[in-house]
Amino acid sequence: MTVVVNFNKKLNAQKAPSLDKLIAITAEDLRGVNEVILEQMQSSVLLIPQLAGHIIAAGGKRLRPMLTLSSAGLCGYTENRHIGLAACVEFIHTATLLHDDVVDESDLRRGAATANAVWGNKASVLVGDFLFSRAFELMVADGSLEVLKILSSASSVIAEGEVHQLVTANDTDTTEQDYLEVIQAKTAKLFAAAAEIGAVVSDRPKEEQRKLEDFGDHLGMAFQLIDDVLDYSAQQTTLGKTVGDDFRDGKITLPIVLSFRSGDEKERIFWRRTLEDLEQKKGDFKRAVQYLENSGALIATVERAREYSRKALDSLSIFPDSEHKQALTEAAKFAVERSY
Amino acid sequence: MTVVVNFNKKLNAQKAPSLDKLIAITAEDLRGVNEVILEQMQSSVLLIPQLAGHIIAAGGKRLRPMLTLSSAGLCGYTENRHIGLAACVEFIHTATLLHDDVVDESDLRRGAATANAVWGNKASVLVGDFLFSRAFELMVADGSLEVLKILSSASSVIAEGEVHQLVTANDTDTTEQDYLEVIQAKTAKLFAAAAEIGAVVSDRPKEEQRKLEDFGDHLGMAFQLIDDVLDYSAQQTTLGKTVGDDFRDGKITLPIVLSFRSGDEKERIFWRRTLEDLEQKKGDFKRAVQYLENSGALIATVERAREYSRKALDSLSIFPDSEHKQALTEAAKFAVERSY
Repeated sequence: MTVVVNFNKKLNAQKAPSLDKLIAITAEDLRGVNEVILEQMQSSVLLIPQLAGHIIAAGGKRLRPMLTLSSAGLCGYTENRHIGLAACVEFIHTATLLHDDVVDESDLRRGAATANAVWGNKASVLVGDFLFSRAFELMVADGSLEVLKILSSASSVIAEGEVHQLVTANDTDTTEQDYLEVIQAKTAKLFAAAAEIGAVVSDRPKEEQRKLEDFGDHLGMAFQLIDDVLDYSAQQTTLGKTVGDDFRDGKITLPIVLSFRSGDEKERIFWRRTLEDLEQKKGDFKRAVQYLENSGALIATVERAREYSRKALDSLSIFPDSEHKQALTEAAKFAVERSY
Repeated sequence: MTVVVNFNKKLNAQKAPSLDKLIAITAEDLRGVNEVILEQMQSSVLLIPQLAGHIIAAGGKRLRPMLTLSSAGLCGYTENRHIGLAACVEFIHTATLLHDDVVDESDLRRGAATANAVWGNKASVLVGDFLFSRAFELMVADGSLEVLKILSSASSVIAEGEVHQLVTANDTDTTEQDYLEVIQAKTAKLFAAAAEIGAVVSDRPKEEQRKLEDFGDHLGMAFQLIDDVLDYSAQQTTLGKTVGDDFRDGKITLPIVLSFRSGDEKERIFWRRTLEDLEQKKGDFKRAVQYLENSGALIATVERAREYSRKALDSLSIFPDSEHKQALTEAAKFAVERSY
């Protein structure tokens, strides 16, 4: 794991960028978002708040709602519609996670048991449907057809991307283009929508709306690519994620696509056996990591992520300097330079 | 099966009511609905139109979109928004069916293999999500916040009902009240929304909107109750459904609730073994049918359905006579008097 470790060491020496600024600047609004979430996931059918509470409380970074909140802040928004809409974004994300974990048959998410591991696949599918519907109810209550358009379109693109990923799963013929399309749909689209909504509620000119959409899109790409790298390098305990999950599931992420492309016949046979046929034995994961490092695939993936991060920063250039701009700037740097 | 068979015989002698009028009067509009459905389920990810096409083409009666179309007709609507909105209703219904079949682990629907049996649970979950999102995109394109409110609220009630059903599954303590709540949410709510939308697009007074909502609600209840009865009586070949599915899954439907309530200890032990513990052996289904007939539970369920059908007819009373009114009237009679 030399490549990635060196890269992290270098960063630590420089004082690594973090999400701290973004977290601090959205903290008060985010409390409001959490209240809306708690209130809106209630139901007399107690399994709903139980299961939803489990996955929502398990937390994660709340990156998407923070993006809506800070984008609104960047646009000088002073009212409170962004709070409810940030909750909608998190509901859509949570519904997607619930269905994702069913599809991936995952047992762990951020170090905790997944909802499907605790309550079963059926409950996860149905509570996901509930949260998704509730998100639309909340948007309707907000009353903006423009927001509804952005988030309904994002939702169908996400679902389309999920199906696309399912179809290309375990297929070593997946191209870089295929892969980028999948994560653009699966991950980047909701980041883009989350950021765009901040501009929409602020009633800012179309150009600012487009720039924030682009910012979210590029940020989402950078985050996802680094997630894919971390699955082959970080420690489970710090990531709160089973390292090697993607490998075990035979997921064809960018590091694999790049390594497969440049690999010799022996390596390709290895990837086909382990990822297509899912015939894996002891020592295979270690060997996979070696191939990925030797081929430069991990560092090349980080490089792609850096490019998206740079594009994200460019998208912010039309906005005057502000605390929100600094917070979003640091978030875009953090996306590629996090060591956990 | 004497009770139900006699009941059918009597009907056949009287010339049974049918859906023929409703089908005929909505035929042209329904072609439009089918075109919208076909167009909107397209995607470059080919599994989506394949899987969606399978379940949508398998057909079913298209009762919910017909309800929207005929309700609009009843209200004298002459434009074409009802076409796209009827397609939304069918998409929401189809998404629910896809997830339902995953949750119920069903292999057959209307005599054909279920999508999950052909393409697997994962694909069914994700394509369901896609159709659901696509429904909201279509509604947004229509542009009525009132319609969006009705259908987003219906969707979350449906999901809540599905979770409620999951929680009470295999529980012989389920009360009649519990059961009616579940089917009101799971089935009747979308019927109600489908009919209400017909009045909304026609811009009719609130009272007519409420009456059509009530009509749909009562009609949905009647249909579901008779479906529950038919699962213990009709022939698989004519119903296109595996008879005894509910029994095999341990579903606690109204016939079971009523029979359990009136049964002696021997019967209760039987229901607990077969439906709670799912320990079923040869001859159990036949015995279940006998208990249901001897206790009068099937006929009592049909009686409840008749009551809902009568209420549905009452809800139409404020509308002047018309072909649409006759078609909807016959549909409400058909709901309880169908022999397949």
